[in-house]
Amino acid sequence: MNIWQVNMDNNYYAVIMAGGSGTRLWPLSRQSRPKQMLALFDERSMFQTAVDRVLDLFPPERIFVVTIQEQAHELQEQCTELPPENYLIEPAGRGTASVIGLAAVALQRRDPQAIMAVLGSDHFIADEPGFRQLLHAAGTAAQDGYLVTLGIQPTFASTGFGYIEKGAQIGAYEDRLLFQVTRFIEKPSQANAEAMIAEGGYYWNSGMFFWQVDRILAEIQRQMPDLYAGLQDIYAAWGTSQAQATVERIWSALQAQTIDYGVMEGARNVAVLPAAGLGWSDVGSWDSLFDLLPSDDNGNIVMGGEHIGLKTAHSLIFVNQPRRLIVTIGIEDLVVVDTGDVLLVCHKDLSQEVRLVVRQLKEQGKEYL
Amino acid sequence: MNIWQVNMDNNYYAVIMAGGSGTRLWPLSRQSRPKQMLALFDERSMFQTAVDRVLDLFPPERIFVVTIQEQAHELQEQCTELPPENYLIEPAGRGTASVIGLAAVALQRRDPQAIMAVLGSDHFIADEPGFRQLLHAAGTAAQDGYLVTLGIQPTFASTGFGYIEKGAQIGAYEDRLLFQVTRFIEKPSQANAEAMIAEGGYYWNSGMFFWQVDRILAEIQRQMPDLYAGLQDIYAAWGTSQAQATVERIWSALQAQTIDYGVMEGARNVAVLPAAGLGWSDVGSWDSLFDLLPSDDNGNIVMGGEHIGLKTAHSLIFVNQPRRLIVTIGIEDLVVVDTGDVLLVCHKDLSQEVRLVVRQLKEQGKEYL
Repeated sequence: MNIWQVNMDNNYYAVIMAGGSGTRLWPLSRQSRPKQMLALFDERSMFQTAVDRVLDLFPPERIFVVTIQEQAHELQEQCTELPPENYLIEPAGRGTASVIGLAAVALQRRDPQAIMAVLGSDHFIADEPGFRQLLHAAGTAAQDGYLVTLGIQPTFASTGFGYIEKGAQIGAYEDRLLFQVTRFIEKPSQANAEAMIAEGGYYWNSGMFFWQVDRILAEIQRQMPDLYAGLQDIYAAWGTSQAQATVERIWSALQAQTIDYGVMEGARNVAVLPAAGLGWSDVGSWDSLFDLLPSDDNGNIVMGGEHIGLKTAHSLIFVNQPRRLIVTIGIEDLVVVDTGDVLLVCHKDLSQEVRLVVRQLKEQGKEYL
Repeated sequence: MNIWQVNMDNNYYAVIMAGGSGTRLWPLSRQSRPKQMLALFDERSMFQTAVDRVLDLFPPERIFVVTIQEQAHELQEQCTELPPENYLIEPAGRGTASVIGLAAVALQRRDPQAIMAVLGSDHFIADEPGFRQLLHAAGTAAQDGYLVTLGIQPTFASTGFGYIEKGAQIGAYEDRLLFQVTRFIEKPSQANAEAMIAEGGYYWNSGMFFWQVDRILAEIQRQMPDLYAGLQDIYAAWGTSQAQATVERIWSALQAQTIDYGVMEGARNVAVLPAAGLGWSDVGSWDSLFDLLPSDDNGNIVMGGEHIGLKTAHSLIFVNQPRRLIVTIGIEDLVVVDTGDVLLVCHKDLSQEVRLVVRQLKEQGKEYL
């Protein structure tokens, strides 16, 4: 039995954030069916996979999910092994600061000594044992009082991620070095991204964390006192008939804020645990799938549908319609996505621009979202 | 009133060949819905337009249509102004030689002095008055005994057409010069096409003709005696209860042959009447539509469907599905055709290769044809 198949101590909890409504894989991802609900890589959805991959570390009763009302039912159906009360419902998305605050309060009610991992639900991770090993080390560092961020070793000068600059070495946890964080950098310009890659010592901010619940709540208290006051009200009402109404009241007054900007940038004892070689991807756009899915001899990835390709190379064909023939002739570097109501034909280098289309549809009050 | 709005003499007939099952506009054109039935340019189908454009020259009762059984009903519904008996039915397509022979026999029964124009049903002609003027001149030359072919002034070194080499000038008909034909050239290689264009004096074979019925039947008798014998049987059975069975019996033994190879290459008194400036197109592939349909400022042609294009240029988007959004990002020189069961994404320079796909589907016994 692998050492990582031993569950962590019983005050360790995983919180999976699954309320996102990302549209970067539109038209496949929709408001009603965001990326984490999609099964892109096998028959399991990305959310199911996010739960599966930590079941060796956390028993189901210590895995929590935070989501929004519209998605709760579908997620519960996708993962019935988690207790229903472990699905925490935000009345609406208000950024990761409030998500994490809500989860921290829920865990604090359960166990004042709780140590929580904050995990995404819509990332791809090729090396799952390596990921669990990393999480185990992060959990140990959290026990020592650090607010641990998982930093992804950059593979290119992405402008799509925030960056973390590492400082002095703090120590080693299970053969992994832990570093102080000098600063958090918001999504950079291309020039700044390239400068950071050239300089080295920067990591992509994965949005995954590990910390003691009372440590993160203390930072929220110090830096986001309004949120903290609301969380105190929620703590007090927890388990009463007023619980849901209290959350809704607090949430209606909340400004959206991320944990990075709201808390981490100004927090003490922040550390970064670098993750390299995990094969991690945020699956942030259609072109990211070219790195994650097997392709044929011509570099094509065909998912679903019947396809005939002549002189077709380095293209992704995704169809979720039955009885549909896709014919491609003389195309290269294209993404073709057919969801029945929408057809997307996009150069893969421009697949980020799908967001502009989604924004335009929203502004025009159109359907297809 | 324009002179060309006067009907030709009452022994002039038009025969519109409408039995083709071309697949070059696949997946829009299908076996059950060939190109001539499609409405690509306005609300009228190409067949309807082919009839419309000669109604100033021929009254409906002197316009005949030759088609195959599978298409007859639809064509009759599309053009109810023609008498039902003017729709001649081939049991199956056997090439233009037999089509023309069948029509010639039908006209000979009606009028031994008949002079017939042979016209296509799936061509685009921008200058319709000019076309009628040309036809009028060709009809006059036919009256003088010539087998008149309409030669299209080539606009590029196409390998998709047969060519006609002109010889000495015969004379002038209504300000148009008529030339002897030196030879017919089958669809040439690229090098040969370029040589002909450079040399000059060659025309594309439009497949449109004008001649006296007894002249063309005499050439069939001389050069295709088997076909002629069959046509004689059909002539004898015409109007009797045995008519249909006779046609079917003759047709079942016919080899497919074109009028060009079967008759015209070896015929006497063949003449070519050059047509220039008509804006003629055989609409032989998707890319031909770029010359025929109006495009927007980015060179895009969008037909049907709702389209959002970012960085999209010189592309054709054709959709005949309701409630369907097409999004294109970063594409150029593409043809996107969505017929519901089939999606084609094709570089416009390769749109001829649609034929290879159709052939493959046929060989594999697939649907979608």
